Amino acid sequence: MSLLVTGSIGIDTVKTPYGISENCLGGSAVYFSMAASFFSPVRLLGVIGSDCPFNLAEVFAGRDIDLTGLEVRQHSRTFRWKGTYGDNMDDRRTDCLELNVLAEAPPTVPAEYKDSKFVFLANTTPALQNQLLEQIASPAFVAADTMNCWIEGQLGDLKLLLKKIDCLIINEEEARLLADEFNLIEAGEKVLNMGPSVVIIKKGESGSIMCSAGGERFILPAYPATEVKDPTGAGDGFAGGVMGYLAQCDKTGFESLKTAIGYGTVIASFTIADFSLQGLAAAKKNDIESRFETLKKLTSF
Amino acid sequence: MSLLVTGSIGIDTVKTPYGISENCLGGSAVYFSMAASFFSPVRLLGVIGSDCPFNLAEVFAGRDIDLTGLEVRQHSRTFRWKGTYGDNMDDRRTDCLELNVLAEAPPTVPAEYKDSKFVFLANTTPALQNQLLEQIASPAFVAADTMNCWIEGQLGDLKLLLKKIDCLIINEEEARLLADEFNLIEAGEKVLNMGPSVVIIKKGESGSIMCSAGGERFILPAYPATEVKDPTGAGDGFAGGVMGYLAQCDKTGFESLKTAIGYGTVIASFTIADFSLQGLAAAKKNDIESRFETLKKLTSF
Repeated sequence: MSLLVTGSIGIDTVKTPYGISENCLGGSAVYFSMAASFFSPVRLLGVIGSDCPFNLAEVFAGRDIDLTGLEVRQHSRTFRWKGTYGDNMDDRRTDCLELNVLAEAPPTVPAEYKDSKFVFLANTTPALQNQLLEQIASPAFVAADTMNCWIEGQLGDLKLLLKKIDCLIINEEEARLLADEFNLIEAGEKVLNMGPSVVIIKKGESGSIMCSAGGERFILPAYPATEVKDPTGAGDGFAGGVMGYLAQCDKTGFESLKTAIGYGTVIASFTIADFSLQGLAAAKKNDIESRFETLKKLTSF
Repeated sequence: MSLLVTGSIGIDTVKTPYGISENCLGGSAVYFSMAASFFSPVRLLGVIGSDCPFNLAEVFAGRDIDLTGLEVRQHSRTFRWKGTYGDNMDDRRTDCLELNVLAEAPPTVPAEYKDSKFVFLANTTPALQNQLLEQIASPAFVAADTMNCWIEGQLGDLKLLLKKIDCLIINEEEARLLADEFNLIEAGEKVLNMGPSVVIIKKGESGSIMCSAGGERFILPAYPATEVKDPTGAGDGFAGGVMGYLAQCDKTGFESLKTAIGYGTVIASFTIADFSLQGLAAAKKNDIESRFETLKKLTSF
């Protein structure tokens, strides 16, 4: 089933206790696309400046990722992010952020993308997420991400968005902030009352929690990765695994969502194994299946 | 099967964002005993001063907890602890610690306890843990807890102890410190190399991890508790559930250990629901079974 993602494409400089990766390819839509492409064809919608040194067609060669919606905007500069991770690989400091082209008008949804059934609105301003979603004719399942600054600064637009989407995928600090509730289970329930029928809360090294409006819950630990070099993109890789699997099987019931979170968790473990996209790029479909089976075994009792 | 616990019996004053509980009953052996008694008879070994205002026979009335090994030492004062929990209920500050009777000679193992098969050495100096263990004739399965100050200050004695026990149950900071390794899976493997055949790492709100010398691993999230008033005793309640279940079924294979961790996790969720022992005291056997089944369902996919 068709899967559209819209989000950032960026030039990252990332420092972790394991090294530094300068001016490498990053961005939510990039990590998501590569992750989801293990399961389903992906339609990428995003915009870069004329300064972007990466050829995405080459980066994604051999993967079913449609770049019709990739806009190269002349006289604009690509989104850039510099960040440093602390020793625990969980604390992240942004050293430098240049929104550049992300602060301009959003990309236009190409005619070929308008019939997309599965849609992921990666983190950007809620106003923009609303505008982009309006251009999709009749989506079957829409998931979105958001972040602290929009919860604090653009809550009205975010609340509008929450009424239109099926699933919110956020991290634990964001869930606590949005719900004004420390306990994550209670926070999840409060967010469900704002509109979505499913809320997935990412807890980094501690896994994830899912709550549904039907009263169902699921908790899964992170995959016990021993290779961890760069956590950048773990959340977007996770979301890509979740949405890619759902689009592949064209199901969104709670049992399918549980399996999808299992795959998202495994994809995240590959994402963090190396800098930039190297971890994900090195993963093979049978590696993913093998870790999925291991994760099932590790958590069953 | 017989289960012996030796650890502290204390007078606690605990402050959390939900209130304050002054001069209430606490201590590792107390939480452990009540937790384990849901599954198995318990033999408690511990010492209090003549100032102790609590009648443990009354506190444990109706539970199969043998107090033959409870020594009331005249002219000594009972162990006291005052602590404050932060908003996240994970950060704990010790405001005041009086070792009192815990700094004196350890209790003597009564003749009736010497044939104990399952033994839990709750947190105290490793030298004392070694001395206590030597008094048990032929234990079948010995588990122990320890803490940062002994890892830093009495590593020699601790390493001796690790060669004599079957299972170490510690929290994540302690595991990292003992193994000198941040990644918890790697830390678990390193601790296994120090002697025990099983290591269980407690991660508080994020659940627990178990590694065995046979290369088996198990990961379980915490029970998604929405009632959390006082985390004191959660770790000892967890250990009590684990050891109580193992003693009940007289098995220590990896599958039994997984089930035991499930019960320990559930017991911890009752422990934190209220101040001091009130949460555990209010739990009924069928509440425990019901949460155990819920936890299984919540984590299976």
